[in-house]
Amino acid sequence: MRPVSPKLAFHKMHGLGNDFVVIDARVQSVTMTEGLARALADRHTGIGCDQLILLEPSDTADIAMRIFNADGSEVEACGNAARCVTQLIGAEAMIETPGGTIYGKSEGGGATLDMGQPRLDWDAIPLAYAMDTLDMPVGWDALENPVAVNVGNPHLVFFVDNADTVDLARLGPIIEHDPLFPDRVNVNVASVEPDGSLKLHVWERGVGLTRACGTGACATMVAAVRRKLVDGETVVRLPGGALSIAWTPGEAIRMTGPAIHVFSAEIDIEMLL
Amino acid sequence: MRPVSPKLAFHKMHGLGNDFVVIDARVQSVTMTEGLARALADRHTGIGCDQLILLEPSDTADIAMRIFNADGSEVEACGNAARCVTQLIGAEAMIETPGGTIYGKSEGGGATLDMGQPRLDWDAIPLAYAMDTLDMPVGWDALENPVAVNVGNPHLVFFVDNADTVDLARLGPIIEHDPLFPDRVNVNVASVEPDGSLKLHVWERGVGLTRACGTGACATMVAAVRRKLVDGETVVRLPGGALSIAWTPGEAIRMTGPAIHVFSAEIDIEMLL
Repeated sequence: MRPVSPKLAFHKMHGLGNDFVVIDARVQSVTMTEGLARALADRHTGIGCDQLILLEPSDTADIAMRIFNADGSEVEACGNAARCVTQLIGAEAMIETPGGTIYGKSEGGGATLDMGQPRLDWDAIPLAYAMDTLDMPVGWDALENPVAVNVGNPHLVFFVDNADTVDLARLGPIIEHDPLFPDRVNVNVASVEPDGSLKLHVWERGVGLTRACGTGACATMVAAVRRKLVDGETVVRLPGGALSIAWTPGEAIRMTGPAIHVFSAEIDIEMLL
Repeated sequence: MRPVSPKLAFHKMHGLGNDFVVIDARVQSVTMTEGLARALADRHTGIGCDQLILLEPSDTADIAMRIFNADGSEVEACGNAARCVTQLIGAEAMIETPGGTIYGKSEGGGATLDMGQPRLDWDAIPLAYAMDTLDMPVGWDALENPVAVNVGNPHLVFFVDNADTVDLARLGPIIEHDPLFPDRVNVNVASVEPDGSLKLHVWERGVGLTRACGTGACATMVAAVRRKLVDGETVVRLPGGALSIAWTPGEAIRMTGPAIHVFSAEIDIEMLL
C-alpha cells in the first residue's frame, strides 16, 4: 500500500476551450469526494476547470476514466475529455467510461476517438414513452421535430435555418427538464452551412451553454446523416472551434479534434479543504 | 544575456479568492504584452486569474511589482497581490508598485502590509473640482455623502445601515464613470456591525463586483476612522473573507490578511499565442 500523499499531481488540459484537470489515480492515492472535486475545480481558490477527470486502472480496457462536473456530480461521457486523455497517454488506448468504452488514437495536437455506435431506440435515449426518434412530434416554441440520439449520454438535435439566431439560453433549460426525458437531455441546435459543414450550439445538461461539446457534435452528425442532410463525414463548427466527425449507419462514430496540454503541477490537498 | 525560453515558470496564488498568476521576470526573460497577459489569464485555455503579477528588479526597493488585469490593461495597486508577493518572497520586503512603495512582512499563511499614508486632498483623489472629501455633498439614489480616499488608487466610501442591501451591481458602474472622477473610481459600500467590525462590498474600477479588494478595505478603514465610526484597528469583512486593518491619522495604513500559494508550474507560451 502506498502512503497517502498530501501533494496531488495533475495536468491541466483543454479541447476547444472545454477545460479539464486530469488526475492519474494509477500513480498516486486519491479519494475523490464531491468536496475535493469542487475545491479543485474552483477557478479562484483551486486549479479551475469545467470537469475533473480521474484516471484509474481498468479490468476491461487500457485505462478507466471518471468525469466529475465542477459541482462535484459525476457524469458518464465527455468527448473533449476522452481526446485529452488519449493525447496525455499517447499512441492509442481503449478508455473505459461509465458511458461505454472509447477507442482513442493520438495524432499531432489532438486525437481521433471511436465513440462506439449511437443508440437510437426511444427507450435507450431514454424517452418517457415510445416515439419515432428520427422525427419526434414535439416542439418548444420555434424548435420542432427534433431527432433523439444517445452517444453515451442523451441528446436532442434540432435543425434550423440559422443556429445562431435561436435563444438557447432560454429554451435549453426548459427542454432539458421536460418530463419527456427521465434522465434529462442535452439540447443541440444545428444548421447546415453552404459548404456542407454543420454549425452547432449546445445546451449541456447540468452545465448550460458551452463553447464546445464533443458528444453533442457526434449526436448532431448522427442526426444529420439519418435526416440525409450530410454525407458520411463533415466538420462541425462550435463556438470554441471545429471537430471533424464521421459516421455511417451501423458503424461507430469517429471524432477528430484538438487536445491541448496546458501545464502540469502538484497541489497540496490539505491546504484546499 | 539569457536566451529567451519558451517555457514560462509561474506561481498561482490567491488572497481571499482574488487570484493571481505571478511571474518572476528577475529569473527569466519575459516580454509582457496585452495579448500574452490575456492568454495567460484566460480561465479555459490558459492558467486563469483575476490579475497577472510581473516581478521585476527595482532600483529603489527590494523588488518591483507590475499588475495587469485579465483584459491586459495595467493597474497601479492591489493589496491582495502585494500580500501574495510578500508571502512568495518570504520574510520582509519593500515592494515598488506604480501606485507607490509598499512594505510587506510575511507571517504564517499571510502577510502584513504597510500601505503608506492615504491621500485625502480632493486633487489627490483625484476629483474634478474642489470639495470636502470627508463629507461630499453628492449622491446617487440612496448612496449619499461619501468619503473619498486615495490609497494608491482612488476610492469612494459610502456608509449605510446594511451594506448587503445596496444594489452595487447597478450603481457601481454609474458612479465609477461619473465625470466627478477624472481617473474613474472604486466604489465601496460599508456598514458598521454590532461587534465593531466593518462589512464591505466593493465595485472595482474596470473589474466589477469582486469577492475581496484589499485597497478598498484600507480606504474604508481610513474613511471610518475619519468619520469616528471605529477606533484605530478593526476587522473588515468582505464576501471572500476578512482582513484586519489598522490606521491612525498621520500614520501609514497596516493591512493583515491571508496569502495562499496554490501551485507552481511552467507553461509553453508559444502554444498559447
